[in-house]
This record gives sequence, C-alpha cells and structure tokens, in this order.
Amino acid sequence: MLDSVKEDALKRMNYVDGHLAGVRRMIEDDQYCVDVLKQTYAVRRAIQKIEAVILEGHLHTHVIEGVRDGRDQQVLGELMELYNLSER
Amino acid sequence: MLDSVKEDALKRMNYVDGHLAGVRRMIEDDQYCVDVLKQTYAVRRAIQKIEAVILEGHLHTHVIEGVRDGRDQQVLGELMELYNLSER
Amino acid sequence: MLDSVKEDALKRMNYVDGHLAGVRRMIEDDQYCVDVLKQTYAVRRAIQKIEAVILEGHLHTHVIEGVRDGRDQQVLGELMELYNLSER
Amino acid sequence: MLDSVKEDALKRMNYVDGHLAGVRRMIEDDQYCVDVLKQTYAVRRAIQKIEAVILEGHLHTHVIEGVRDGRDQQVLGELMELYNLSER
Repeated sequence: MLDSVKEDALKRMNYVDGHLAGVRRMIEDDQYCVDVLKQTYAVRRAIQKIEAVILEGHLHTHVIEGVRDGRDQQVLGELMELYNLSER
Repeated sequence: MLDSVKEDALKRMNYVDGHLAGVRRMIEDDQYCVDVLKQTYAVRRAIQKIEAVILEGHLHTHVIEGVRDGRDQQVLGELMELYNLSER
Repeated sequence: MLDSVKEDALKRMNYVDGHLAGVRRMIEDDQYCVDVLKQTYAVRRAIQKIEAVILEGHLHTHVIEGVRDGRDQQVLGELMELYNLSER
Repeated sequence: MLDSVKEDALKRMNYVDGHLAGVRRMIEDDQYCVDVLKQTYAVRRAIQKIEAVILEGHLHTHVIEGVRDGRDQQVLGELMELYNLSER
C-alpha cells in the first residue's frame, strides 16, 4: 500500500473507532433506536470512504503493474470479485 | 430498547470492534489491498446485521406504540427517513 | 394501493421504461461502457424511488391497519423481510 | 463492446423488460404492495447483473488497452467514478 494511502486509511480508521465507541454508548444509554441507526449508517459510509481510498490506491499500483506484467486475468478477476461482493 | 435487543446488539458490537482491530493490523502490516477490502466488506455486513436487530426491536416497540397512540405520522415518517438514508 | 400512490408509481414506471429503451439503444449502438453503466445506475435509482413511493403508501395503509387489527406480527414481519431483501 | 458481452447484455435487457411489464400489471391490478416490492427488488438485481457483465467486458478491453497505451489516469479515474456512483 502506498504510504499516503496507508496514512489516510489509518486516520480514517481512528475516526471510525471513535464513532463506533459513541454508538456503543448510545446503545448502553438506551438512546432512541432511530438515532442509533442514523449513526450506524454514518459509520458504514465512513468505512465505504476508507474502501474507496484503498481501492483507488490499489488500481494505481497493483492493477497497473498486473496489467503491464501480463497478469491481467488475475488483477481484473480480483476487481470483479470485489465488485460482486460489494453489490450483494 | 428491549433488554434482549440491547444485549444482542452490544455482543455484535464487540465482534465488530475485534474485526476492525484486525483490519487496522492488516493495513499497518501492508497486507494486500484486496484482502483488506474483503474484510471491510464483512465488517459492514456485520454492522448491517446489528441494524436489522435494532430495527426489528424498534418496529415491535416504538412503532406499534406510536400507531396505537395516534402518533403514526411521526413513527412512519421516521421509518421512511431511515429507509431513504439506508438506500443512498 | 392508494389511487395517488398508484398513479405516481405508474407515471414513474413510464419514465423507467423510456430510460431503459434508451439504454438498450446505447448497447446496440456500441456506446462506451462507462456511459452505459452511468445510465443503468440512474435507472436503478429511479426504480428505488418507485419503491419508496410504494413503501410509504404501504406504511400508511396496510401497516397501520394491521397494527390496529392486531396483525402486527404479520405486517412487521413483512417489513423486516423487505428490509433484509433490500440490504442484500 | 465485445459481441459476446453485447449479446448477453441485450438478452438480459429483454428479461428485465418482461419483468418490468409484469410489475406494471401488478400495480395496475392493485396487487399487495409487499409482493410488488419483492419484484422490483428482483428487477434491480437483474439490472445489477447486466452491469456486472458490461463492467467485466469493459475491464478486459478498454481498461487493459488504456493502461497499455499510457492512459491509465483516464481509465482508472472512470472506474473510481463508477464505483462512487454505485456506492451512493
């Protein structure tokens, strides 16, 4: 992983950790379900953003290298696998 | 929140926390992007499952009470708000 | 289904039909894949909007009646089934 | 678009058209909202499958060519654009 991607992803992971700790407290404190759910949706969006950062780095490193090295079946197959997993 | 829902949700939160800590280590250890992404997808699925548990509890408590108490505009409006947020 | 919901849903179905016919022509005319995919995403969004219209009508008719008539297990069970289907 | 992809996509479009015509009849005949929604979800899944077919073809043609021709910024930027659109 590129250093810049790694740094960005880890910074965003910190944010997700803090956000999830807040959700836990909301559940422990019996806050209103609707408010809890809005927060878990926001956590999932934040994770999706981490995924976008990692995927973009992946495309610009491993995928390019794979295509140039003749391993396109492998790297493109992996992309389709991720796509199908994310669409489920 | 019903005690059974709360307990189930918090137990699942523990699992998500552990899973996310594993993802963090994968990023720190420069593991392959594709493997990291498969794990973040799994974390999001686990959060969605927590949401389903909370939503089901919500329907069987607040929504039923709201409809019986004549506050159906409020509780159904909240459900549509959640639906639209989750579909984004 | 309420007449207003039905009318709105059918009008939106006309739009989706026209949009899909456009996508078909794009495929037949060998347009660029990326442009075709942007249009199919838009079609799916339009279908999701129809679903929101139908769901909202459903909540305000069958769900309210079901809860008031003591059939809450049935109507809430159906909502959870739809939720789980839509999240897949 | 590859001929095999085009043929597969158009065949699947026929299926989607027929499915959507069935949904329209369900709405016109005042069928139960829950049953209508299950069908629209199935239609969206069928469209997602068309998208997967087109995307896979796109990766194995335009993306590979783009990377080999030094236009990787363009083709990878388009992939990220599609990814972000589909995740919304």
